[in-house]
Amino acid sequence: MFAFIRNLVRGSIVLLSLCGGSAAIAQTDPLPSWNEGRAKQAILEFVGKVTREGGAEFVPPERRIATFDNDGTLWAEQPAYFQLLFAFDEIKRAVADKPELKDKEPYRSVLARDLKGLTADRNKGLMQVVAATHSGMTTEAFAALVRNWLDLSRHPTKQRRYDQMVYQPQLELLRYLRANGFKTFIVSGGGVEFMRVFAEKAYGIPPEQVVGSSGVVKFGIDKNGKPQLNKEPKIEFIDDGPGKPVGINRFIGRRPILAFGNSDGDLQMLQYTAGGERARLALIVHHTDAEREWAYDRKSSIGKLDKALDEGKAKGWVIVDMRADWKTVFPEAR
Amino acid sequence: MFAFIRNLVRGSIVLLSLCGGSAAIAQTDPLPSWNEGRAKQAILEFVGKVTREGGAEFVPPERRIATFDNDGTLWAEQPAYFQLLFAFDEIKRAVADKPELKDKEPYRSVLARDLKGLTADRNKGLMQVVAATHSGMTTEAFAALVRNWLDLSRHPTKQRRYDQMVYQPQLELLRYLRANGFKTFIVSGGGVEFMRVFAEKAYGIPPEQVVGSSGVVKFGIDKNGKPQLNKEPKIEFIDDGPGKPVGINRFIGRRPILAFGNSDGDLQMLQYTAGGERARLALIVHHTDAEREWAYDRKSSIGKLDKALDEGKAKGWVIVDMRADWKTVFPEAR
Repeated sequence: MFAFIRNLVRGSIVLLSLCGGSAAIAQTDPLPSWNEGRAKQAILEFVGKVTREGGAEFVPPERRIATFDNDGTLWAEQPAYFQLLFAFDEIKRAVADKPELKDKEPYRSVLARDLKGLTADRNKGLMQVVAATHSGMTTEAFAALVRNWLDLSRHPTKQRRYDQMVYQPQLELLRYLRANGFKTFIVSGGGVEFMRVFAEKAYGIPPEQVVGSSGVVKFGIDKNGKPQLNKEPKIEFIDDGPGKPVGINRFIGRRPILAFGNSDGDLQMLQYTAGGERARLALIVHHTDAEREWAYDRKSSIGKLDKALDEGKAKGWVIVDMRADWKTVFPEAR
Repeated sequence: MFAFIRNLVRGSIVLLSLCGGSAAIAQTDPLPSWNEGRAKQAILEFVGKVTREGGAEFVPPERRIATFDNDGTLWAEQPAYFQLLFAFDEIKRAVADKPELKDKEPYRSVLARDLKGLTADRNKGLMQVVAATHSGMTTEAFAALVRNWLDLSRHPTKQRRYDQMVYQPQLELLRYLRANGFKTFIVSGGGVEFMRVFAEKAYGIPPEQVVGSSGVVKFGIDKNGKPQLNKEPKIEFIDDGPGKPVGINRFIGRRPILAFGNSDGDLQMLQYTAGGERARLALIVHHTDAEREWAYDRKSSIGKLDKALDEGKAKGWVIVDMRADWKTVFPEAR
């Protein structure tokens, strides 16, 4: 009889813990790759207060919207945006397939590494590179190209897969936010169809929670009678700078309560988030780690952080010092 | 002692049922407002096969995307799209506030019920009505107007709140799909900022799962230093016809496995959905119920169903006959 009672009690405890009793879990550090310090403390305090039921700062789960920039915030962006490296690789692959392209623009300039030529006349050459590699195919064919590139290519100096150039502390933060009822979104200047290929596996962020820049897409029925979406060589939306709050409104329809960026292109997203009522958290990754990652800010042509750094400091946003705040930068290589 | 055991047992049972034990629930009809028939059977069979783990047609939860048109599919659309009735009411309210507007267009034509005048010259007057009532304010101010209108106005013939002009069988279907791991989206020609105001409460669909037509929105800092999004009098995206699969790709990034529409404006969404690989379900509401709702199809100026009806019949899509298939149309009045 006592064994029966003991088993029942034990069973109830197991059931209770399956039901989400988290007394034991709460003791472990949800952000082990973050060093103890002001940034980590600010995150823990913010999540604590917005999830405390009955508390003055409580936010119901459906309003716990968190938006993250991608390049330089969730994954690295040096020596150049990875999407641009993808485009250059695709140009080279195209010339290998059709050697007659090698003397035509923008193929010639890419092969000659003529970045000055490509960026002349308001990035005319770069736009041609993007058009040549990001259009003239279905959305599904484009996704297959990106998937293939991710599988075959490696970062030029770190020698990792590009989808392993992600930041371990941010992966922990994304998981921690979701475990606390947040819905996590990417809001990036990068191409939405490019990011969606890896965002789910790399970050646990499904395609419908990725907001990004996009080109025009047209619906059509192909010669086999199959309905398809075709990518056209025309920009439709630039999700950068003031475009970020616009993209947030268009795709999400609520003002975030947490936003995380790393450059001046994130300034308006951070302003829009911090400008909402009640508790809000705005955070910036400051790239200060020349040894483990890269160190750059005000004078960088990629991920320039100047105005947003000043405004963030003035307004008490959380400036994450990569060198000091992050115990680990990249995940263990797989 | 026995009372103690009894309480423990009872406690375990309560815990088990809280944990989602659904043996009892599985026996009850998830679609009680649907009459037994081919449409209901097709839905139950489809959901059964795509959720059967290990089955040939199994679809993992993250790919269980279901898209629903709104006007005429989730709520009624007669005698005119409710968003247009909202716009007309706002025009009248504006004239009540500023009587000097009454001789200016489009105010004069709305007051005179001059629909012919409003629709002349490619709907020029109607576009002015939309511009006058849907722009020149922040996104938050617009949402407040819609909320206020929903609270104060009633449908002209059914005398219900507009957000009670929703279809009970569809509310059950949305719930049933979500209970089976589907993510439910609205994909509508209606304005996204209009629908988001009531979609969460009326349908259980959060703002970030509403895809619709939209106007240009600009980011700015107002005179009090508050970051705001301002609605401009310019159309940006029409989420109708071939725009629907484009909108699905832009906002969701996956081809749905189930789509539900009611008019030719849904044809391309249905084609795109049905054209995917493996199990897909395309459904059409056919308005056949002049008594409880309205009866209209090929010759209607609102919700015209002609080409999609032919193609749906030819391709074996599920044509829901409102009069025969729906036991109840509207929910009990609250």
